[in-house]
Amino acid sequence: MNPTDIPAYMAHVGVAARAAATTMAAAGTAAKNNALRALARRLREAGADLADHNELDLAAARAAGLAAPLVDRLKLTPAVIATVAEGCEQLAAMPDPVGEITNVKRRPTGISVGQMRVPLGVFGMVYESRPNVTIEAASLAIKSGNAAILRGGSEALHSNLALWRLVQAALVEAGLPADAVQLVETTDRAAVGRLIAMPEYVDVIIPRGGKGLIERISAEARVPVIKHLDGNCHVYVDAEVDIDQALVVTDNAKTQKYSPCNAAESLLVHQAQAAAFLPRIGAIFAAKGVEMRVCPASKAIMVAVPGAQLVDATEADWAEEYLAPVISIKLVDSLDAAIAHINRFGSHHTDAILTTNHPNAMRFLREVDSASVMVNASTRFADGFEYGLGAEIGISTDKFHARGPVGLEGLTSMKWVVLGQGEVRG
Amino acid sequence: MNPTDIPAYMAHVGVAARAAATTMAAAGTAAKNNALRALARRLREAGADLADHNELDLAAARAAGLAAPLVDRLKLTPAVIATVAEGCEQLAAMPDPVGEITNVKRRPTGISVGQMRVPLGVFGMVYESRPNVTIEAASLAIKSGNAAILRGGSEALHSNLALWRLVQAALVEAGLPADAVQLVETTDRAAVGRLIAMPEYVDVIIPRGGKGLIERISAEARVPVIKHLDGNCHVYVDAEVDIDQALVVTDNAKTQKYSPCNAAESLLVHQAQAAAFLPRIGAIFAAKGVEMRVCPASKAIMVAVPGAQLVDATEADWAEEYLAPVISIKLVDSLDAAIAHINRFGSHHTDAILTTNHPNAMRFLREVDSASVMVNASTRFADGFEYGLGAEIGISTDKFHARGPVGLEGLTSMKWVVLGQGEVRG
Repeated sequence: MNPTDIPAYMAHVGVAARAAATTMAAAGTAAKNNALRALARRLREAGADLADHNELDLAAARAAGLAAPLVDRLKLTPAVIATVAEGCEQLAAMPDPVGEITNVKRRPTGISVGQMRVPLGVFGMVYESRPNVTIEAASLAIKSGNAAILRGGSEALHSNLALWRLVQAALVEAGLPADAVQLVETTDRAAVGRLIAMPEYVDVIIPRGGKGLIERISAEARVPVIKHLDGNCHVYVDAEVDIDQALVVTDNAKTQKYSPCNAAESLLVHQAQAAAFLPRIGAIFAAKGVEMRVCPASKAIMVAVPGAQLVDATEADWAEEYLAPVISIKLVDSLDAAIAHINRFGSHHTDAILTTNHPNAMRFLREVDSASVMVNASTRFADGFEYGLGAEIGISTDKFHARGPVGLEGLTSMKWVVLGQGEVRG
Repeated sequence: MNPTDIPAYMAHVGVAARAAATTMAAAGTAAKNNALRALARRLREAGADLADHNELDLAAARAAGLAAPLVDRLKLTPAVIATVAEGCEQLAAMPDPVGEITNVKRRPTGISVGQMRVPLGVFGMVYESRPNVTIEAASLAIKSGNAAILRGGSEALHSNLALWRLVQAALVEAGLPADAVQLVETTDRAAVGRLIAMPEYVDVIIPRGGKGLIERISAEARVPVIKHLDGNCHVYVDAEVDIDQALVVTDNAKTQKYSPCNAAESLLVHQAQAAAFLPRIGAIFAAKGVEMRVCPASKAIMVAVPGAQLVDATEADWAEEYLAPVISIKLVDSLDAAIAHINRFGSHHTDAILTTNHPNAMRFLREVDSASVMVNASTRFADGFEYGLGAEIGISTDKFHARGPVGLEGLTSMKWVVLGQGEVRG
């Protein structure tokens, strides 16, 4: 199919995806697992060929003057290939979510009513740069019994095409339809506009990339979107707390990596612990070059910390996702104030309380309106692999359907099954 | 607040709903149950007052020349009041879905990861005519810990206002915020336009009414919508079947009531059973005055049925929701053909197979892409009360979030909880 006539091309892709979705929904677990293992094998065998195609993207990126970190994200190193191949095998080893029947209960009428987990159908995935996402999305589509339409970044097109050929070969090897995973073969942006506006062919869109991309897709999509825009994650140090533990967890949540969406961006400290906690965490941040955007009360305590980079916080800081060695710090006078602050300024992504007080821990869990709420653990754990989902297709900060890391279950829904023996309604 | 400045009025309603939602999400089970029982008591005590307000709507409806069945749907008879009051008490007796923590698993890192059920937040409900929906929606909002903004039909405004006053009094009596349930106090249609386009205040919209209303809301809403447009439900009589049982179930699915969305609209019969089954079901339908829109093969068998009203089916009949004493009938030569027909022409609402063959029953359950799939039971069972949900706020034929009858669980979502002892990410 000629991808220059975008509407016709995307409709063709949509029809093929819908047909493949029907076959995938009924596919056996063994076939799906065989496809995943074949994909892992083919990824490992394809070393030189993949490297050649990847080099085309890398050369173009360097020629275009892309910054070194962006070029790095494009690289399909042997380590990256090994990781995605292992990911396919891990998915093959997981239980099949499709067809699971739960909560079957006998009703007074005699019928038994339960729920069966089934694939959503077709998901569209729009992502930037890193080509390994192609394999992550393809493998999750296969295991969850969905069909996928993938649209990667133009800068990774050669790499994505090479990876996609491996996916299709693995599907065919396992007796599954090659169209279960399709890659949009044009870099024309109009193709994205079509992909997100074909409710007859696509059931849900999952964007992964910069905030601009996600905002644009959310505004224009005519199907549901699984997404998160911001990860403004909080750590709250409660009035009753193990200070040594709180230092370790706060440090990890902020500094273990600065760029992930689950890194902490804001630190709230109960005033009862301010004098004990702030100078010590301030010294840790100062040593690591983390800039602190502080409220007046925390500033008054932290000015004595040698080398601390203190900046007066503005209201905008409470809502900011820095993704950098910067953290906002605020004293609060109660758990209520902490919860209210998080629910007002947070992004409903991941927030943690550090406390030894059980009722406070339980209130925080119940009342903070975020996809992940944590007690005495680093926000950095908010991740599909860490949660035991095997892999994640994205993270949702919406409340509808799936919240937080979205794995196989988030790509399915539950239908009702009724098992009768000839019952009728009276 | 003056409801003539619609944007300002609806924003005021939205702000109040958001504030009430926070309180409701943290409300105790006892308080919510007390409000439901108080509401039941107040409904029973309010007899004469309710009747007076209801009479205002009935008189206006008669004066406007509304058809008798439409006037009937407006009536708050003692029987209707008794039913909704009982519904409130049944909800009070059900387990509280909010706060339930499930699937907590220990991870190799030491953290425990599980999921907690929490309210969605604020739902907007747009409905027509029957005022008892006001109480059904209010009681589901209270038990599920959500806030609700209700917009009933203009023809029921006096009745709805009177019922709403009882709801608010019951909330206050139980120490809960009166704004947990708000009724839009204007019949200006612009209020609906605002309600469905305030994502900052409203998390989901649930429309109940005619197809026109639901299509308009789906097209214009800027938040998720829980809805079904059509109920084109199928009964498929398989090649191996208990004919006597199939006759009883098919008859019930079609004729027990014609107007509900879960009534059967289309009958598929495997050709191996056509000669045995069609004349007998044809005689039943003929006796009840049910018109049959038949394919050529079924017509050839049914022409001999005395009194049968046979009409040649057109392609449009396979997709039609009659809500009337009419049914389309088609012979198929295989289970595959039946499944393909249902997935192509159906509305993903409710479909049933009548069979004694186990593999066929299982394939039908897995492969028919509908919110409810049934074996040897009448499609009329597709209903929140029959499924044991206590009550239903609506029925969804979408795949995202909730499918089929939506009760308390459909008004909630699951957030992740992480319980640690100071763990950090390595």
